[in-house]
Amino acid sequence: MIGPEIDRLIQLLSRLPGLGPRSARRAALHLIKKREQLMDPLAEALAGAAARIRTCPVCGNLDTVDPCGVCRDASRDRTILCVVEEVGDLWALERTGAYRGLYHVLGGTLSALDGIGPDDLAVPGLLARVAQGTDSVAVREVILALNATAGGQTTAHYLTDRLSGLHVAISRLAHGVPVGGELDYLDDGTLTAALRARRTLG
Amino acid sequence: MIGPEIDRLIQLLSRLPGLGPRSARRAALHLIKKREQLMDPLAEALAGAAARIRTCPVCGNLDTVDPCGVCRDASRDRTILCVVEEVGDLWALERTGAYRGLYHVLGGTLSALDGIGPDDLAVPGLLARVAQGTDSVAVREVILALNATAGGQTTAHYLTDRLSGLHVAISRLAHGVPVGGELDYLDDGTLTAALRARRTLG
Repeated sequence: MIGPEIDRLIQLLSRLPGLGPRSARRAALHLIKKREQLMDPLAEALAGAAARIRTCPVCGNLDTVDPCGVCRDASRDRTILCVVEEVGDLWALERTGAYRGLYHVLGGTLSALDGIGPDDLAVPGLLARVAQGTDSVAVREVILALNATAGGQTTAHYLTDRLSGLHVAISRLAHGVPVGGELDYLDDGTLTAALRARRTLG
Repeated sequence: MIGPEIDRLIQLLSRLPGLGPRSARRAALHLIKKREQLMDPLAEALAGAAARIRTCPVCGNLDTVDPCGVCRDASRDRTILCVVEEVGDLWALERTGAYRGLYHVLGGTLSALDGIGPDDLAVPGLLARVAQGTDSVAVREVILALNATAGGQTTAHYLTDRLSGLHVAISRLAHGVPVGGELDYLDDGTLTAALRARRTLG
């Protein structure tokens, strides 16, 4: 005997990744209890975001400004492009604070099985950007920051092929032991890669 | 370099129970991707719920109608009151479909440590309902469906004391082996209770 309004709220919340039916019910109760501190602001934030957030036509990032905050930041190095699969990967790299170049979001990976070819991803735009430069600054390096999965690696190989004629350095992220990781829990592939890419200390 | 709108959305989502910072970011991206199917409807559902959901003055349930759907359902047995700690517990009992009486939501448990006394909970209202009946129907049984925690049990004892003079049957939920549960994984207290409350089969 849950009312239809609450029921609908729970249904919608349960469609968020990470929330099942039980946690959606808990979240709904929490929201109703914290109406002024949480429910009203969240309703406004959602409506505001839905109305204002758009995909950057240059790099594929999500932002309320066009082009996005990264692309319009004059302090960033326009000679390096970091290619990522999804916006979430861009966010992860931005959180490190270690990268000051621009991005290019592919929107997924190549997949023969799912019928996803280069034209379904932002590959044509990437090739054009590399060929023409961004804001008439020539691109000198493309970092392929794709996931270390079959799909990511297939896509990285394909892009390496396509970019190889364009006089641009191509790199990928290093494989190795995660910081804080224990060798005993690592898979063989990572350990092999870490061993091969070992650094001389002395 | 996440824009302030997206950042605020992630902040608010991460305050929901069950969502940490990482899953809040995933949820935000999912919402932005599914704007029409999920983000817009959720914004509307939240705004609608915030505007219309209220606490039932009779039993403490949450609903958009006053009194709530349970209290106004003429087919329910008005002679039985089931006392629960929170609205979430009421929802859990309603999902079973096994209970057709009315409810009384306490809003928590007694706690000397946190300075929560009977007047901070819906105890006076419960005593009045039991003494006067609901819709002039006399209450004949009160089921104390409180959690099997220290706070829940303290509160159950206190309520048993207070209700004992009011000519009403008082019961509590049975303890025992959860349906589908394995004995090997049960705590000793539950197993002892299940043994003591064993049922004759033949």
